Amino acid sequence: VHQVEWAEEDAGKGDFEHHMLKEIHEQPETLANTMRGRLSDADASAHFGGLNVDPQQLRRAKRIILTACGTSYHAAQVGEYLIEEFAQVPVEVEYASEFRYRNPPIDHDTIVIAISQSGETADTLAAVRESKRKGHMTLAICNVVGSSIARESDGGMYLHAGPEIGVASTKAFTSQVLTLAMFALHLGRLRNMSALQGARMIAEMRALPDHVREALGCDADARRIAEKYAHCTSFLYLGRQYLYPVALEGALKLKEISYAHAEGYPAAEMKHGPIALVDANTPSVFLALKGAIHEKAMSNLEEVKARRGPVIAVATAGDDVVARKADEVLYVPDVPDYLQPLVAVIPLQLLAYHVARLRGCDVDKPRNLAKSVTVE
Amino acid sequence: VHQVEWAEEDAGKGDFEHHMLKEIHEQPETLANTMRGRLSDADASAHFGGLNVDPQQLRRAKRIILTACGTSYHAAQVGEYLIEEFAQVPVEVEYASEFRYRNPPIDHDTIVIAISQSGETADTLAAVRESKRKGHMTLAICNVVGSSIARESDGGMYLHAGPEIGVASTKAFTSQVLTLAMFALHLGRLRNMSALQGARMIAEMRALPDHVREALGCDADARRIAEKYAHCTSFLYLGRQYLYPVALEGALKLKEISYAHAEGYPAAEMKHGPIALVDANTPSVFLALKGAIHEKAMSNLEEVKARRGPVIAVATAGDDVVARKADEVLYVPDVPDYLQPLVAVIPLQLLAYHVARLRGCDVDKPRNLAKSVTVE
Repeated sequence: VHQVEWAEEDAGKGDFEHHMLKEIHEQPETLANTMRGRLSDADASAHFGGLNVDPQQLRRAKRIILTACGTSYHAAQVGEYLIEEFAQVPVEVEYASEFRYRNPPIDHDTIVIAISQSGETADTLAAVRESKRKGHMTLAICNVVGSSIARESDGGMYLHAGPEIGVASTKAFTSQVLTLAMFALHLGRLRNMSALQGARMIAEMRALPDHVREALGCDADARRIAEKYAHCTSFLYLGRQYLYPVALEGALKLKEISYAHAEGYPAAEMKHGPIALVDANTPSVFLALKGAIHEKAMSNLEEVKARRGPVIAVATAGDDVVARKADEVLYVPDVPDYLQPLVAVIPLQLLAYHVARLRGCDVDKPRNLAKSVTVE
Repeated sequence: VHQVEWAEEDAGKGDFEHHMLKEIHEQPETLANTMRGRLSDADASAHFGGLNVDPQQLRRAKRIILTACGTSYHAAQVGEYLIEEFAQVPVEVEYASEFRYRNPPIDHDTIVIAISQSGETADTLAAVRESKRKGHMTLAICNVVGSSIARESDGGMYLHAGPEIGVASTKAFTSQVLTLAMFALHLGRLRNMSALQGARMIAEMRALPDHVREALGCDADARRIAEKYAHCTSFLYLGRQYLYPVALEGALKLKEISYAHAEGYPAAEMKHGPIALVDANTPSVFLALKGAIHEKAMSNLEEVKARRGPVIAVATAGDDVVARKADEVLYVPDVPDYLQPLVAVIPLQLLAYHVARLRGCDVDKPRNLAKSVTVE
């Protein structure tokens, strides 16, 4: 078995104190690399060199199962919304560790897609093998070229995000989400999407690196907010629709590197239990970007304020209403709903980074964790 | 609109200090009531008076969507495994608050089932209305007879669990899971299940009230363990397969009434982040019952022990191996995998109750929470 691996020394930290911080700031470039050569104006679609699936088979797909672990699982959750919205195919997201031992009903018109940065995640690899053994078309979304999951799948899409050294995944997450958005475009254009809508999505995706660069401008604010709340031991992260998986991912970042107990929830679930945790020492991070159900998210935010919980909001640049209601605001640029995960996660990555640094944690090598989980 | 409601005075606390404790101890009877008159030896199946669906339509169902909030959402997650295992129909579980605003692809062979104890949960009711507006067959699983969700659905199944007064749901959860198990049996027997297997399941379900009574015998142990860990502010709850939703439910119970930050995870996901939280003051509650992947769960348990995290295990009666590896054990009787949620949740309900009581929290009326969430 030949494995291509990047050595740590190939990827210096440049001017940054930690690999993670460097990787956070690389995202405008890594997202551009993920898109490079894949968006086609000629047919208003996206294309992947190694996808290796007959278009007829993609057209016929009646269901897609996305399977992954950890951060990749959160990217898969965004992928569910993307594929269901743009390609109108029902999607199910499964933890690889659960999926591999279950025997769920899967018919021959189902495609299984495994997502793993390293391509070596033990549970995800086992899920790929089980899926292939059952004869399902199995695709991979990996970063490491030639990794086990990439090799053993029928085809797939590489992230082209470059080596990720920080144990807490950042740039791989955004490239995974963008890859899933491009796949949704590809699938949508095979099925139900007009050339006009395809062309619009391409333009929106091309503008993304600049929007992410703009979002990175909140670094100083994230640092200031981190200084104020770094002593807290419990945090809630809340979002709805496309931003619910981002809430989960933001909470996971903080948990991984700062060891604070952060938990993500769909914002409206708060009142079914988690709101009992809210007090003056339990900050809630609200993903309150403008969009389809902004008002509902705002009323969830107000419920937390009414219980004296500090609120840190991630909001759309220029939204003064959120600024008046929240204790702290981190602004990101205005982008269409389906691309919001890619800008909204930036302040959460930075917040986790600064809290961990202030707490004196080893940001790049957090306790108890490994970069690539090759045990089951 | 006519609403049938139970008044609090109709349901005294009997010899118990709190409604919640009384309701926990009622479960052998409430489960018997949920089954009463519904299991048929003659055709080795389960039947529901108010289901109101043409058997042909149930046979044709290609997909089932379960939608709910809070504890009912956890029952739905168990339901996914039950229906997929016994009726071989793909099931998707959606938070009602997310589902009602999404527009996921749903074809005419999909059945939507809404689950709510009170039948008045605002987000779940809105999901039912949206689902019906789109012309989908929509069923309800409710406890309160004549509630809005029950009335507005095309048909459904009542829990017959009697009034639940404690804000933290206990007996409604177990009756919801049992109702879903009976529905899986009904659907399975319409489709792929032999009379022999149906008869075996009926026998297993009938034995359940006695097994739950036996599980309640761990009360004194739960109290002793609560005394030891009541000062901790952070807990992890871990389980796999049928016991993963039980881990979520156990964590929610503790969070709701004791305000400790408890979070549930599929056990194998630990190493993708949450294990960073583990230290001597962060207990992990492991659902380590005997069954299909017992050994894998045990290796997850050992990973936590290796990081000096205290382990409270819920194990199958007589399992000495778990007792040697964990710091504390709560035993439950041996039942088939698919009924394990119903016995394994009992010690978690009792643990949450005793921790909350020791912390001086108002068990029946926790801060910030309402019994029936009729706001969005």
